[in-house]
Amino acid sequence: MSREVIIRPLDAEAFAPFGEVIEARGVPSAMINQGKCARFTDLAALDFADGRAGISVFEGQSYALPLALTMMERHPLGSQAFLPLSDDPFLVIVAPDQEGVPGVPQAFLTMPGQGVNYRRNVWHGVLTPLERAGRFAVIDRIGEGNNLEEYWFEQPWRVLENTG
Amino acid sequence: MSREVIIRPLDAEAFAPFGEVIEARGVPSAMINQGKCARFTDLAALDFADGRAGISVFEGQSYALPLALTMMERHPLGSQAFLPLSDDPFLVIVAPDQEGVPGVPQAFLTMPGQGVNYRRNVWHGVLTPLERAGRFAVIDRIGEGNNLEEYWFEQPWRVLENTG
Repeated sequence: MSREVIIRPLDAEAFAPFGEVIEARGVPSAMINQGKCARFTDLAALDFADGRAGISVFEGQSYALPLALTMMERHPLGSQAFLPLSDDPFLVIVAPDQEGVPGVPQAFLTMPGQGVNYRRNVWHGVLTPLERAGRFAVIDRIGEGNNLEEYWFEQPWRVLENTG
Repeated sequence: MSREVIIRPLDAEAFAPFGEVIEARGVPSAMINQGKCARFTDLAALDFADGRAGISVFEGQSYALPLALTMMERHPLGSQAFLPLSDDPFLVIVAPDQEGVPGVPQAFLTMPGQGVNYRRNVWHGVLTPLERAGRFAVIDRIGEGNNLEEYWFEQPWRVLENTG
């Protein structure tokens, strides 16, 4: 089995098994502010086993491509949304669960204005800005207890751009 | 009384009576991802009378300075956070309540990486990108019932940069 993952553009349909793409897409839910603002309402399924929703900020160092994907993680107690506080793209890596460990990963590159919400217990890579360090607002569970499971691959996956 | 409001840089302390500045500031709550990411946890006081928190996206047209501030609004049923999905600055206008109507407004300009959370029932201006149209993630109350109160000034306030 090849250990290569080719990066694709982030797309709501392709991402649907893992969560939601948070973006201005399609018909607005409402036009507000005397018609000067389009509102797209309630785009992410927030799901917390307990605790409550909170807004945090992550400031993450950048990664270079091709990326050696050595670890994936998941959060058993809550969904986790990442909203970039810039126009810079970032890498979204997810994998289906396969008997308690990550299956074959999929990698997506965001466009400006796109965030993601990882469904509870979905395997995903760590925050991965590409071009430079990035700041993100994160909406996730605030509460006690261990909400982190990590899985380290015996052999890393190689995540790279489609140069074909 | 002058009807002019001079714009100041957004600052957590000055903004505190109205809500929170959501930004990477001070000592991180934790270093995560093998030290490659700083986490600043739980920066906004989410406060909903009923309903629940949701993530929406607003796509707003831009405004020019000086701005004629004709209306302010508030949300009696919940806090409302604005997180810019770009590096562009936006204008944050708030006012103390004065017997049920907005008092003298204050105007703040954001820096890259800054969002805000308006406390429940705080008078604020509509979403105001300045340089070009902007997309924002909004964390506010999802629920039934009227959560909008508007106040139209008899005379607009003039909001302008400090050119002194």
